[in-house]
Amino acid sequence: MSSTAVRFAVIGADHLHLFQMVDRLVAAGAAAVAHAPGGGLIGMYTGWQKASEERSADAILADESIPLVVLAGIPCERAAVAVAALRAGKHVLSDKPGVTTRAQLDEVRSAIDGRRGRPWTVLFSERFENRAIGEAVALARSGAVGKVVHVVGAGPHLLSAKHRPEWFWDGTATGGILVDIGSHQADQFLAVAVGADGPPAPAQVRLAAVGNAACPDHPAMQDVGSMTLVANGVVGDHRLDYLTADGLGTWGDVRLTIVGTEGVIEARANVDVAGEPGAEHLFVVDAAGTRRVDVSNRPVDWAEQFLADLADGGERLMSQAHVVAVCDLVLRAQQAATRWGES
Amino acid sequence: MSSTAVRFAVIGADHLHLFQMVDRLVAAGAAAVAHAPGGGLIGMYTGWQKASEERSADAILADESIPLVVLAGIPCERAAVAVAALRAGKHVLSDKPGVTTRAQLDEVRSAIDGRRGRPWTVLFSERFENRAIGEAVALARSGAVGKVVHVVGAGPHLLSAKHRPEWFWDGTATGGILVDIGSHQADQFLAVAVGADGPPAPAQVRLAAVGNAACPDHPAMQDVGSMTLVANGVVGDHRLDYLTADGLGTWGDVRLTIVGTEGVIEARANVDVAGEPGAEHLFVVDAAGTRRVDVSNRPVDWAEQFLADLADGGERLMSQAHVVAVCDLVLRAQQAATRWGES
Repeated sequence: MSSTAVRFAVIGADHLHLFQMVDRLVAAGAAAVAHAPGGGLIGMYTGWQKASEERSADAILADESIPLVVLAGIPCERAAVAVAALRAGKHVLSDKPGVTTRAQLDEVRSAIDGRRGRPWTVLFSERFENRAIGEAVALARSGAVGKVVHVVGAGPHLLSAKHRPEWFWDGTATGGILVDIGSHQADQFLAVAVGADGPPAPAQVRLAAVGNAACPDHPAMQDVGSMTLVANGVVGDHRLDYLTADGLGTWGDVRLTIVGTEGVIEARANVDVAGEPGAEHLFVVDAAGTRRVDVSNRPVDWAEQFLADLADGGERLMSQAHVVAVCDLVLRAQQAATRWGES
Repeated sequence: MSSTAVRFAVIGADHLHLFQMVDRLVAAGAAAVAHAPGGGLIGMYTGWQKASEERSADAILADESIPLVVLAGIPCERAAVAVAALRAGKHVLSDKPGVTTRAQLDEVRSAIDGRRGRPWTVLFSERFENRAIGEAVALARSGAVGKVVHVVGAGPHLLSAKHRPEWFWDGTATGGILVDIGSHQADQFLAVAVGADGPPAPAQVRLAAVGNAACPDHPAMQDVGSMTLVANGVVGDHRLDYLTADGLGTWGDVRLTIVGTEGVIEARANVDVAGEPGAEHLFVVDAAGTRRVDVSNRPVDWAEQFLADLADGGERLMSQAHVVAVCDLVLRAQQAATRWGES
């Protein structure tokens, strides 16, 4: 830890994304100095970050030497902590989803009103951690396939039923499949359809559905969902599920296909099924031909960008408006969702 | 030609599918004995089928020695010929789309009412000609990936603007992108969602859109479209376009993904982009692992099945109800379509 290291605290330890978030922040120069008690993964966390001091959430929020709190609690509990932290003047880095209800989003928006930069960050890790997804979005934004017409995303996941906590099965706790894992898809859609710099164009939900295909023991579980989004004249068709078969060998065959007037970009985030080994596969088809794009040298530097933004009020990583727009969009999709397979 | 060969005549020569249809019929033992004049490809046809005799359509329909007519005219003109042929007691094998309007479908239904078997066949060639698509559907029907939950199809095409006839650009002539090339997708969706044997379950159109993304010189052209279909509790998301880049090396990266409760089947019909050479790639992910399935030994025997059906009134190839259901579904999708990218 350097003398100028950003000191951060963890409040909420219920999702494994916590470890990815903290790992990247520490590698970028921040210091994990404290954590609030509680959370299903807190023992794993304290066993790893041995220098982190257990303190009450109130004490953390009152400590002016801690400008940043990292949230990875149960999804439905994140917003209340975020609002308290924002009102205490902190920056917040939250696992996705950042909110699970419209009322929560309204409260967060009120808490960030008037703050400069991006005080409330929800880390849409599929784009920021996966080089193939990140590069696909960057290529599309650069005009590599002309004007983007259609974005098609797939976010299948392993159910891993034996390893899931009770709250996982409760749509009220997670916000539902479109809010929870659909956040990644909405982030990617808006990042492509709206672009890097401008304010998010108003996006619309044209259709959404959720269902329970294979979890009879948990009737409230949503293990399949889809949504059709529209923004800036671009259509996004996105599907999510927890139906991944064990034989895949990874947690999900996540894909992002971007169809433009001059070509197609396809990212296979985690696996090239029965193809090349490893993860982060990117394909481009354009007038010149078909090819794989090597993304291994693309930096995963979201934490560096995040800390730079925190230091100067910038919005390098993404804009505050984008974070809010993603959350708003998936809440509307979830609200609009009809029952899977019903007409 | 054997003495028992089924004698058939061609009426309408405006789409290259004609050559595939005739080639398969002849290889299966039928005889191309006559053709009506006219059609943009008739010269190419007569140069190939030198034994075929030019006769008026009326003369062909009046000839009791000809039980079968093959239609590959301009899409909007096929139904009238089909109705006349059906009323003359013939069997009809039509290129897709079989009809372009609701009124046409009503007339065809009236003409087949009371006939046994499947007098009116529309050849949905993507499934019947492509071994990967055909095998994907067969595997799904056999329960290889459990209960089917989601069908996702992509039917991108090369525009090949220089080689298209005038009628190609006219939505009234083609029926529109969902009716025309969407017929393949609706066929595959119903084949998977409804299965091989039962009568088609009522299918619904949940959402549809069409647009013009890259054809400014032809403002009426629909070069992109999508539709979300529902049947039997299965959702189908299907996209079509004429945006394929020249560099692909084939006419379109057609895909069919079938998500079940126990695995995923993915067909890449024409190309495995930057992967294995050739066409007809099939992938399965299930509890046992991920693998390519070799489909090279799968017979393309639709013509043999078609002729056997013609001989005994069977419905091996597909049911008459299925043909009607596909045509009905794409007409409804086209009718329901909103403008691409509008909310």
